[in-house]
Amino acid sequence: MVIVKHVTEFFEQSFGRWRSQRSGHHLAFSHFEEVRSTIDIEPLTAADPAVAELCHRYGVSAEAITHPFRMRWQGESDWEENATFEGSTVLVPVPDPGDATRGKLLRDQGYAETVAAVGEYAFGPDGTFVLFTDYERASAEERIWFATPNVRFRVSLIRTRDGAGVTTASFSSEIRALAK
Amino acid sequence: MVIVKHVTEFFEQSFGRWRSQRSGHHLAFSHFEEVRSTIDIEPLTAADPAVAELCHRYGVSAEAITHPFRMRWQGESDWEENATFEGSTVLVPVPDPGDATRGKLLRDQGYAETVAAVGEYAFGPDGTFVLFTDYERASAEERIWFATPNVRFRVSLIRTRDGAGVTTASFSSEIRALAK
Repeated sequence: MVIVKHVTEFFEQSFGRWRSQRSGHHLAFSHFEEVRSTIDIEPLTAADPAVAELCHRYGVSAEAITHPFRMRWQGESDWEENATFEGSTVLVPVPDPGDATRGKLLRDQGYAETVAAVGEYAFGPDGTFVLFTDYERASAEERIWFATPNVRFRVSLIRTRDGAGVTTASFSSEIRALAK
Repeated sequence: MVIVKHVTEFFEQSFGRWRSQRSGHHLAFSHFEEVRSTIDIEPLTAADPAVAELCHRYGVSAEAITHPFRMRWQGESDWEENATFEGSTVLVPVPDPGDATRGKLLRDQGYAETVAAVGEYAFGPDGTFVLFTDYERASAEERIWFATPNVRFRVSLIRTRDGAGVTTASFSSEIRALAK
């Protein structure tokens, strides 16, 4: 069942507040981590200072981008007693000029390391948004898809830098919390 | 990174013993379940009595099937204190005559209900094996893919019968335990 057929729809359908359940699997140790969080994804304009600054840093013109957004999260993990966390990041999709289903994703803070990062995305005919990001010592691979208009799933893998091994995998179920 | 490019390879690469970590998400209650198990997937022949019986039940000839196998699992869940479980099922892929990447999957015990079931599978160009199975009161949707030759992931959704809602989702990380 393909809920979202175009990458534009994928971005727009993602806006809103989500209640997330995330399970982390640390493969070498067979360890589980459980995280509950609230995720807010809000659209920004190309004129937003954080968007303009990212575009400037990567030498991308405001006309070349689509659907910039801010993602904020707040939650708690069972990894440490009473550990809560929160954060936010700005993301800017830059579609390939010849193929809107692929592009680069600029962000001011990465998933696996807390530095700016550029990922490569591709939106497949099965409705899955796949994102690859290389970091200094690892690479991240995320697959995100809608199961219904209000339920989104996300699988994130952290690979060793050479891609040969997977160190951790996580699975998130995200349920829309507020009407758009 | 597409590890397994053909459905035949997908079946063959799946044979062996796997250590599985599974996280279940019960979406309505934000409940987590953690399961550790050992899964054995062993090839069978078309002449195996359990395979012959399934073929007979569904009126399928032995020539029409490919890679029949038995899957056995044994594990423990945190759902109940000290709850252990085990089970086994025989599965028989029946490729579509005109398109080997699609077919039916016969099994003598289903995933969501303990009755015989027939699923529909499709193997995509991104290396994901997708399986849909309708049951009386629910339907199951599974996606299985290899991240390395020895690491397999599986996402299973249980949908309401009409497909509009998702009641539970689970994510399994499966690591090969023994050389093939």
